[in-house]
Amino acid sequence: MPEIYVHAVEGRTLDQKRALVRDITAAVVKNFNVTPETVMVQIVESLKENKAKGGVLFSERPVAAASR
Amino acid sequence: MPEIYVHAVEGRTLDQKRALVRDITAAVVKNFNVTPETVMVQIVESLKENKAKGGVLFSERPVAAASR
Amino acid sequence: MPEIYVHAVEGRTLDQKRALVRDITAAVVKNFNVTPETVMVQIVESLKENKAKGGVLFSERPVAAASR
Amino acid sequence: MPEIYVHAVEGRTLDQKRALVRDITAAVVKNFNVTPETVMVQIVESLKENKAKGGVLFSERPVAAASR
Amino acid sequence: MPEIYVHAVEGRTLDQKRALVRDITAAVVKNFNVTPETVMVQIVESLKENKAKGGVLFSERPVAAASR
Amino acid sequence: MPEIYVHAVEGRTLDQKRALVRDITAAVVKNFNVTPETVMVQIVESLKENKAKGGVLFSERPVAAASR
Repeated sequence: MPEIYVHAVEGRTLDQKRALVRDITAAVVKNFNVTPETVMVQIVESLKENKAKGGVLFSERPVAAASR
Repeated sequence: MPEIYVHAVEGRTLDQKRALVRDITAAVVKNFNVTPETVMVQIVESLKENKAKGGVLFSERPVAAASR
Repeated sequence: MPEIYVHAVEGRTLDQKRALVRDITAAVVKNFNVTPETVMVQIVESLKENKAKGGVLFSERPVAAASR
Repeated sequence: MPEIYVHAVEGRTLDQKRALVRDITAAVVKNFNVTPETVMVQIVESLKENKAKGGVLFSERPVAAASR
Repeated sequence: MPEIYVHAVEGRTLDQKRALVRDITAAVVKNFNVTPETVMVQIVESLKENKAKGGVLFSERPVAAASR
Repeated sequence: MPEIYVHAVEGRTLDQKRALVRDITAAVVKNFNVTPETVMVQIVESLKENKAKGGVLFSERPVAAASR
C-alpha cells in the first residue's frame, strides 16, 4: 500500500519498465511516507488496437500524434 | 480526461472496437462538455477463463448465458 | 458484462450523468452485441485536488486548460 | 453488481481460477446480500516483468520474496 | 499481492465490510497459495447516481431491480 | 497517455499530493519518452474502513502496521 497502476500502450523495453517502477516507487516513498516494500507498481499494457484518443484507435493514428 | 475503461471478454473484431471507441467518445463529448482529443478510451479484454458471473467462469458457462 | 468505468473530475449534474450512462450503454449494445441489462456503467469522480495533467493538479490549473 | 477485480501475477492454473471465483462469489453473496448471478469476478493477470514490489520487478525478485 | 477491488454501491455497514474482506482474503489465501499479509482488499463504493445498469442509474431504478 | 492511478488510504495533505503527481509525472516522462502534458495522474483515496490488509480493515489495524 499504496498501489500504483500505469496504463500504457505496449512497446516499452524491460529496461524502461525497470527504471519506471524504481522511480515511481521512490516518488511514493519520498512523498507519502511509506517504506519501499509497501509500494506495489503494476504496468497495465494494452494493444494499440485497444486504446483510443479523440475517438481514434492508436493503431490507426498518425505516428506523430500517437505519442501524445 | 475523461478516461473510459471498457472491460469485456475477448473476441471482438477490429471493426467493432473502432466503432465502439468512436461512439463512446461522441457520447462523452456530447454530455460532459469536453473536446474529443481529451477523451481516452481503453478496451480491457480478458480471457474467458479469467472472468466469471454467478461464480462460473465464462469459459465454462453455456453459450446462451455467456452473453449475459 | 461488459463493465464501463468513466473517470472524470467532479462537477457534472445528475442530468449529465443520466444522459451519459444512457448513451454509453446504447453504444455498447450497438457495437458489442449484448443486451442493455448486461451493461454496467460506473462514473468514478475525483476531487480536482486528486487529479493532475502535465504534473499539475486540476485544482491548480488555469481554467482554460482544465477542460483539456 | 458488485464487480470484483483480482490483480495477480500470471501462473495460476484453471483449477485455481475456477475455485477462486467460486469462493469469492460466495463471500460476496453471503456478506453483501446479493444473488450469485449479479456477481462478476475478473482475474487481471500481469506478466512478472510488469509488476513490482519495493521498486523491483517480480521477474527480478528472489523466489522467496516473490510470493510476498 | 494479490490486490482485490470490490466495486459496490454505497450502503454496506462496517460489519458487512469487515466480514467481506476477511472472507475474500481467506478465499485468496486458500486458492492462490499466498500468505494473508500479502493480500490487499479495497472496497470501492459509488453513489447510486454514479452507477447504472441497463442504461438506468441505480438512484432511478425500481428497488427490486436495484439489487441485481 | 499514459494514465497513472495511485490507490492510497485517505489522509495526505495537498502539499503531499502536489509533490507526488509532479514526481510521478517526471518519472514517466523520463522513462517512457512522452511529453508531460500527455501524462494523467489520479490519486484514488479510500476510507480506512474500505481497505484491508491481511484480512483486517485499516481502521482496525494497529497504528504501526497501518503504514505497511
